[in-house]
Amino acid sequence: MNVSQAIEHRRSVKHYDPTHNMPDADLARLIELAQLAPSSFNIQNYRFVNVKDKELRKQIRAAAWDQAQVTDASVLLAVCADINAHKDNPARYWQHAPKEVQDFMVSSVTPFYEGKPQLTRDEAIRSSAFAGMTIMLAAAEMGYETGAMIGFDPVAVTKILQIPDHIVLSYLLVIGKSTKVAWPRGERLPRSEVLIQDHF
Amino acid sequence: MNVSQAIEHRRSVKHYDPTHNMPDADLARLIELAQLAPSSFNIQNYRFVNVKDKELRKQIRAAAWDQAQVTDASVLLAVCADINAHKDNPARYWQHAPKEVQDFMVSSVTPFYEGKPQLTRDEAIRSSAFAGMTIMLAAAEMGYETGAMIGFDPVAVTKILQIPDHIVLSYLLVIGKSTKVAWPRGERLPRSEVLIQDHF
Repeated sequence: MNVSQAIEHRRSVKHYDPTHNMPDADLARLIELAQLAPSSFNIQNYRFVNVKDKELRKQIRAAAWDQAQVTDASVLLAVCADINAHKDNPARYWQHAPKEVQDFMVSSVTPFYEGKPQLTRDEAIRSSAFAGMTIMLAAAEMGYETGAMIGFDPVAVTKILQIPDHIVLSYLLVIGKSTKVAWPRGERLPRSEVLIQDHF
Repeated sequence: MNVSQAIEHRRSVKHYDPTHNMPDADLARLIELAQLAPSSFNIQNYRFVNVKDKELRKQIRAAAWDQAQVTDASVLLAVCADINAHKDNPARYWQHAPKEVQDFMVSSVTPFYEGKPQLTRDEAIRSSAFAGMTIMLAAAEMGYETGAMIGFDPVAVTKILQIPDHIVLSYLLVIGKSTKVAWPRGERLPRSEVLIQDHF
């Protein structure tokens, strides 16, 4: 499946076959591809919680307006990001680079983020979305449907998954085999509304 | 190019051929595909500023640590999102749906976002990243290189592009023909660090 076909095929699917199990190798491949998504300063701050435990799934479903895909999808990922990634031994992110590049990066990344909680949170949301969109398109190619979800109580899900303070829960992502064709795609906004020439 | 090839091919490229012009049809196709990226409640809140004006490009470059790709890339998009999209005549986002679905969506989306500035900003960053990752992979298929950038002064760029208060500037995205092979990709974090089983 080529890229544009995957983009056109992808829909936010809500109905999944609860009897389907995703092979471990498929999930491993999706995570491997997600790890190729870009992140600021290559900090690779995205984190994926693979919620397999059925009891946890039920609790999350209860905190997500009882949406069936939370328990029925083959995979439920809580897509998160570590807001401390920029200061967590940053030299390791540029091990492959010459010493002077490493030094420049290490000395730049901490002041870039330190004391800027909104910037740090934005980067958490942004990187986790880049990684998740990568998964959604890769999953389409592998014959899976997906759905990114923010319709849940983030405080409750944070508690259920024991997400620590330095981790931002960005969204939930379900992956599996659909049992029902998605709703026809609605009309898109006119291009003139989304594409602005030069400035507002 | 299939999806996994595009994901593996994509790198954050910094060196572009300044003499290359992207055909309008290619940019139109990229935006068309970006508009298929998911957004919460289908609010399609992403907005793309296509900065063609050379003087504006120079000003942005000056506000972006003088990074050459800002002026040299064929296309510079300021990828933004409208934080008021959820209340900007929301019925139009579900024109294609039956009346009861429309009514449910319209009555749900405003209370979901209203009075929650962090949630609204998160959704702005998230949707604009989903859309931009879509562009990056589609551009790879079309023979272009890309680079998402946050290394700039957001206050200065907001001023240069006259971005109004209800629009969040999420990141810059350059697209063009590269003149220099990207740095070899660094080692990725071990999977055990990014993939968490069941809960933290």
